[in-house]
Amino acid sequence: MLDKVKSETRIEEITKQFNSVRKLTERLCQELEIEDYNLQAMAETSPIKWHLAHTSWFFETFILKCFEPDFVPYHPEFEYLFNSYYNSVGEQFLRPNRHLLSRPTVTEVFKYRENVTNRMMALLESKASGRLLEMLPLVVLGVHHEQQHQELLLTDLKYNFYQNPLLPSYSHKHVQNKSSHSKVVAHKWLEYQPELCVIGKKLGDGVKDEFCFDNESPQHQHYLQGFAVSNRLVTNAEYLEFIEQGGYEQAELWLSDGWAVKCQEKWNAPLYWFKRDGAWHYYTLHGPQPLALNEPVTHVSYYEADAFATWKGARLPTEQEWERVASSQSLKGPFLQSGNLNPSAQTQSSDEVMQLYGQVWQWTSSSYSPYPGYQPLAGDVGEYNGKFMANQYVLRGGSCVSSQEHIRASYRNFFYPDARWQFSGIRLAKDL
Amino acid sequence: MLDKVKSETRIEEITKQFNSVRKLTERLCQELEIEDYNLQAMAETSPIKWHLAHTSWFFETFILKCFEPDFVPYHPEFEYLFNSYYNSVGEQFLRPNRHLLSRPTVTEVFKYRENVTNRMMALLESKASGRLLEMLPLVVLGVHHEQQHQELLLTDLKYNFYQNPLLPSYSHKHVQNKSSHSKVVAHKWLEYQPELCVIGKKLGDGVKDEFCFDNESPQHQHYLQGFAVSNRLVTNAEYLEFIEQGGYEQAELWLSDGWAVKCQEKWNAPLYWFKRDGAWHYYTLHGPQPLALNEPVTHVSYYEADAFATWKGARLPTEQEWERVASSQSLKGPFLQSGNLNPSAQTQSSDEVMQLYGQVWQWTSSSYSPYPGYQPLAGDVGEYNGKFMANQYVLRGGSCVSSQEHIRASYRNFFYPDARWQFSGIRLAKDL
Amino acid sequence: MLDKVKSETRIEEITKQFNSVRKLTERLCQELEIEDYNLQAMAETSPIKWHLAHTSWFFETFILKCFEPDFVPYHPEFEYLFNSYYNSVGEQFLRPNRHLLSRPTVTEVFKYRENVTNRMMALLESKASGRLLEMLPLVVLGVHHEQQHQELLLTDLKYNFYQNPLLPSYSHKHVQNKSSHSKVVAHKWLEYQPELCVIGKKLGDGVKDEFCFDNESPQHQHYLQGFAVSNRLVTNAEYLEFIEQGGYEQAELWLSDGWAVKCQEKWNAPLYWFKRDGAWHYYTLHGPQPLALNEPVTHVSYYEADAFATWKGARLPTEQEWERVASSQSLKGPFLQSGNLNPSAQTQSSDEVMQLYGQVWQWTSSSYSPYPGYQPLAGDVGEYNGKFMANQYVLRGGSCVSSQEHIRASYRNFFYPDARWQFSGIRLAKDL
Amino acid sequence: MLDKVKSETRIEEITKQFNSVRKLTERLCQELEIEDYNLQAMAETSPIKWHLAHTSWFFETFILKCFEPDFVPYHPEFEYLFNSYYNSVGEQFLRPNRHLLSRPTVTEVFKYRENVTNRMMALLESKASGRLLEMLPLVVLGVHHEQQHQELLLTDLKYNFYQNPLLPSYSHKHVQNKSSHSKVVAHKWLEYQPELCVIGKKLGDGVKDEFCFDNESPQHQHYLQGFAVSNRLVTNAEYLEFIEQGGYEQAELWLSDGWAVKCQEKWNAPLYWFKRDGAWHYYTLHGPQPLALNEPVTHVSYYEADAFATWKGARLPTEQEWERVASSQSLKGPFLQSGNLNPSAQTQSSDEVMQLYGQVWQWTSSSYSPYPGYQPLAGDVGEYNGKFMANQYVLRGGSCVSSQEHIRASYRNFFYPDARWQFSGIRLAKDL
Repeated sequence: MLDKVKSETRIEEITKQFNSVRKLTERLCQELEIEDYNLQAMAETSPIKWHLAHTSWFFETFILKCFEPDFVPYHPEFEYLFNSYYNSVGEQFLRPNRHLLSRPTVTEVFKYRENVTNRMMALLESKASGRLLEMLPLVVLGVHHEQQHQELLLTDLKYNFYQNPLLPSYSHKHVQNKSSHSKVVAHKWLEYQPELCVIGKKLGDGVKDEFCFDNESPQHQHYLQGFAVSNRLVTNAEYLEFIEQGGYEQAELWLSDGWAVKCQEKWNAPLYWFKRDGAWHYYTLHGPQPLALNEPVTHVSYYEADAFATWKGARLPTEQEWERVASSQSLKGPFLQSGNLNPSAQTQSSDEVMQLYGQVWQWTSSSYSPYPGYQPLAGDVGEYNGKFMANQYVLRGGSCVSSQEHIRASYRNFFYPDARWQFSGIRLAKDL
Repeated sequence: MLDKVKSETRIEEITKQFNSVRKLTERLCQELEIEDYNLQAMAETSPIKWHLAHTSWFFETFILKCFEPDFVPYHPEFEYLFNSYYNSVGEQFLRPNRHLLSRPTVTEVFKYRENVTNRMMALLESKASGRLLEMLPLVVLGVHHEQQHQELLLTDLKYNFYQNPLLPSYSHKHVQNKSSHSKVVAHKWLEYQPELCVIGKKLGDGVKDEFCFDNESPQHQHYLQGFAVSNRLVTNAEYLEFIEQGGYEQAELWLSDGWAVKCQEKWNAPLYWFKRDGAWHYYTLHGPQPLALNEPVTHVSYYEADAFATWKGARLPTEQEWERVASSQSLKGPFLQSGNLNPSAQTQSSDEVMQLYGQVWQWTSSSYSPYPGYQPLAGDVGEYNGKFMANQYVLRGGSCVSSQEHIRASYRNFFYPDARWQFSGIRLAKDL
Repeated sequence: MLDKVKSETRIEEITKQFNSVRKLTERLCQELEIEDYNLQAMAETSPIKWHLAHTSWFFETFILKCFEPDFVPYHPEFEYLFNSYYNSVGEQFLRPNRHLLSRPTVTEVFKYRENVTNRMMALLESKASGRLLEMLPLVVLGVHHEQQHQELLLTDLKYNFYQNPLLPSYSHKHVQNKSSHSKVVAHKWLEYQPELCVIGKKLGDGVKDEFCFDNESPQHQHYLQGFAVSNRLVTNAEYLEFIEQGGYEQAELWLSDGWAVKCQEKWNAPLYWFKRDGAWHYYTLHGPQPLALNEPVTHVSYYEADAFATWKGARLPTEQEWERVASSQSLKGPFLQSGNLNPSAQTQSSDEVMQLYGQVWQWTSSSYSPYPGYQPLAGDVGEYNGKFMANQYVLRGGSCVSSQEHIRASYRNFFYPDARWQFSGIRLAKDL
Repeated sequence: MLDKVKSETRIEEITKQFNSVRKLTERLCQELEIEDYNLQAMAETSPIKWHLAHTSWFFETFILKCFEPDFVPYHPEFEYLFNSYYNSVGEQFLRPNRHLLSRPTVTEVFKYRENVTNRMMALLESKASGRLLEMLPLVVLGVHHEQQHQELLLTDLKYNFYQNPLLPSYSHKHVQNKSSHSKVVAHKWLEYQPELCVIGKKLGDGVKDEFCFDNESPQHQHYLQGFAVSNRLVTNAEYLEFIEQGGYEQAELWLSDGWAVKCQEKWNAPLYWFKRDGAWHYYTLHGPQPLALNEPVTHVSYYEADAFATWKGARLPTEQEWERVASSQSLKGPFLQSGNLNPSAQTQSSDEVMQLYGQVWQWTSSSYSPYPGYQPLAGDVGEYNGKFMANQYVLRGGSCVSSQEHIRASYRNFFYPDARWQFSGIRLAKDL
């Protein structure tokens, strides 16, 4: 149990984090037009406005509603309108229709945010509350939840903007990409011997212990055969070679389901790649640009990652292999904080495995499933992770639009194998 | 040919009309929030912003581009983005995706409108142009085109707003519906004897002659058997009786295709009807309200109109029957100008056929097909009407959101038989 | 009312017709394998076995059930299994699933047929029955119903066989197509002056009066503007020219709905046309063959027929124009009786309009809708025609697989505008 | 390498197996009507005739074509028509359309089978061939392949028959189900301690070594946490309790994807369960019968199995847990050989884990993915297993319609999580 002094420090720290995350979300919207807030090009993407409201709904529903004395809902319909998928909370407005909500307006949603932020701050400051220890873990969860939505806000917007032939830029900041003509470090295989290793993290609530999501727990032993991983990520140049050598036309390189999707969707390159005047370009959050060959390839599906690996005579790493490699390294990477909303080329050599973090989410060959002994969180937030443990694949490492504080070696992201709108890329592995 | 004086008068009149129509469109938007301009709940509805841009595109593409000296497109992509369906002009941005265009912004589209309006005015005022007689008919066509979009703007918005559980009101003006408790005039059949009558209108360009669309021409003879029509429209009360007596459960009342749609869409009442606390309500542009039983029923499909008529032992009129009846009466009705964005009850009696105009579009049993001798307009505007002459049904009379100046006895509107989002209603007919 | 002698003669004639139609259906199946009886490649086509059972169901349900003393159903489930679309009779087994009924077997269905035929014969021979006059019209209706299914049986089989890469032949009889290299008669326009003419037929029950379907009645006056029709049908050679000159690539030739279907279905020629070693072939009920250029084009949709006509600067005839032309000619044509299961070239000249009957169903520009004063038959058979009067187009003239006795000048066939699996072809018309 | 004597014995054994498997396939068809051979109610099921041809195609394509001197294909189109999914062999006839092949007829397919069987026998008897050692493993693979299709033949037929309201019986043999009123043994948890165990099997070709599929290899170490498993399978009675207590209405019990499928497909019980006069029945290959409460539940999807386990406070076993349990027991079970085409109740007690084999395939929580170090077979047969390693779940144990000789502890079957037409059931597990 927390002693009093430590406890006060933690409350202050958490309050600060809360505040800073709320502000960052708003700062991410600062160059947008009102019209941009409601775009939704597919069910999987949500309008910005919805993200802004839903992250507030999370604090209102899971914290204010339980801990605020004399709680009154901000608006009687918001519990329904901004519930993402919590059946235990109640029914949800149909996901693909979120773009049909012109009201509440953007201004009204910002007011809602402000109201929730203020009430949360009041609650955090009223330290007297006897239920603080019960509440704080949920605040920390809400902070991490909002960080996830910050990333989605950017990837959804990128996807939605791309549907517009005018190809608007999200950010007009010029990123001095010094490396775009520099040479990428040479590819090398780094080997790991068989071993019984420890995977996952003890479930921490972010108050007494370091935070992690329930899906990263429990910590458990896992036997790893020997393997090797690439010292760096696959580049656009390497992926282009795959395309040019007919990778998209050879069924034998593909998983059966992947080939079917490829044919139906007529994929012939990563998402956002297009040709203009015969030259490959790609759409970025800084607008359309000539393809930078030395950057890590991104916006590929699991199927494409797997086909590429097969073509290379390699395979994707398992999530345990990835974690084994990553857990021995410190967390560093460009991340969202770099301001470059694209992954960047690895031009400086190192003996370590490079580009593990904050560049692109790396597809692993592991289906997203519960760790041995896994238990979802108690209460309504138990729907956060567990019910999605089917049909998805685990991705690791965080991307150029993840917050650095949000990511760890044990962090498990997950998407369907045909998803391409996240910053998802490829690291290769092979058997020893 | 127009003599000079007459010609100047006509130019002034047309210029005035042009100006007034452009302004009306903008006035219709005046209470909207920016967020409302981009809603699109189904492919058939377009965002308001798109209507605003497309009606400007029409003048830019069919007039400025041909008649303006040194024409330069306002924006290189607008020809593509705001083309509705003119293949001869070029490819079109995918219709169901119009809501994905957050840019150009609403402000930018209003600037585009202003620019087009100003350039059109300049062109109209430079009377010297030798090609005036060629241009004026297209200006008139553009004016009527914009009037059609004014109606769609309102019906599309109604449909789009209805998807939002908050059920926003388009207009907060309180309409004193004096008649909502008054008694509707008694139903009577008015009879017409067999006769060879004249249907349609001579194609007029709106400059020398009164305007009509090409689909109303040529004027031709048509033999009508004897028939009778109802003296007024079918009311909500009458339609409710149909519902309560199981009209939506009896296959034998329905056309085969209609029954299939009804089952698939789970229709059990007109669009916008819903029950709240056990009582029927409907959504209107003035917001949700208790159902006014004495008003004409509206927002029914052709299939529902036909099933209702069958249930009544009657049928829908043919478009020729309707025109025969209407052409002997003067054009009067509430129309858009009344400000009541709902049809109104007929409480005052008359010996004439009542509620012909400006209340609800009346489904006829006539498929939308070319009149004998029909020729589409020459040039790109030839795609305006002719290519839609399949699978749709003709509706007559104009609605409470049509402009009075836009409607005539010979006016042919057309929609697919499953369409319900227009102000479409029912007038009955029968054989003698 | 029929006097006794006349009545006995009519009973004998009808009995003979009944017998002969039942036998013909079975003769049409005589070269089939058991496996062929259950094919169903799309919902619109039914398995042969289902046709055999349903035509027996018709007599059992509408006649035996009403007129047979001590009626007992042949099988308790057959009323449900073999009901096509009569809601008043009861629910129906799902149409697209008919191919899933391996049982009853073909042998069992032939036994069912035999049983129904025998019981019908017994009923017809027990002339004493007081309800004969009530029954006979239904027998005649059943005979005509079975003739319709004979045609469907062949067109459905053709469609279903075509899905098999082995392209089986239905008939191995060699048809000496003497004309396949002969020259088709020259195209000419034959003109008709404006006139108030009589269309349709008095509803006859086939007992006292000549039979017709309810949809051909009532006979009524119709005013026709002047028009011209082609003296013969459009040939494969002419249609090939349309293809080669880009007819399938020019949106401006097509109805809007037609263009959408064409694009989605990737049509680039009539159904059953394919290229082998660079040369056009077509699949026929006699197997695959090189395309005979002088034959009438067939297996085109309404949309293709309309686009072809537009390309020719002509149009399709209305059904009234067609009937006006046909009613002045005698009924002659190859029909099913010729044994040539393909339309044949017109190589012998005539001053009359040629190829009106028994070659290909000719698309008219008329939507299938009720004639003025139309009333469906009383009772359950009222669902025969009326409820389909929406979204379909009228075709006239009968085809090479129609029975000659089944067709008349007033006969109205109807299909959806995208249907191509019937022997549907093109006759041109134009305004004077 | 095999010495000569041993080799001759193996050839004889394999020849015998080959012969016996070919005969069993044919025996399974012996009570069918010709009409039954072509049913295909969904893409995932194939017509019986197609199974008969495809299993012959396998031997013709992978063995005769390579090893038969002067090989000539039996029919030029069969390579295309009866290829299931081997892209390296060539294109395939569209899977959902297999029911459209009325030709070749059943008789012709049996002739094809006979021809292939005879040629295979001739090849096996010509022991002189220098390539015997290369060929024999493929013969063994073909034998196991045909055994898989024997099971599919029965499960596909069950599904297809069920679409027919007549609910035909596949087998009229009366199975004396002595146990249908006997009491099922009590449920117990059997515990297993943590251990590093060996999973999988060394790849054996079935000639020198015991056969296994490539997906069971390589044998490798796997660390297992402690766990417990149920001593027997979940029964219909237990599953019925889940239904009656609202299991199908509580979203919180379900995986998110499972809930979506359940809602869309309107599942409220296992496949083949239906109510008749208020009492639960189920359709079996012996026809419709009252539900036997003491039998293992079967025909449930992964989603239902998982929801049931969650409701019980348990979970499904991983495939490694299942294999750990099963590998210590001998292979026994009813299997196909019992002639009871339904799983049977466990009424006799035992201290071992019961009902592991030959009852129902047991869903595991393991995604179907490659074992560490997995390599697909060389050559075209490399497409057999590997390319399906995505989006499916592993099932273990074999069912009442699997051949006993086909199953082992390491055997991995796999299906999509929404599949219900296999004999799939539930064994529970939990953490220690």
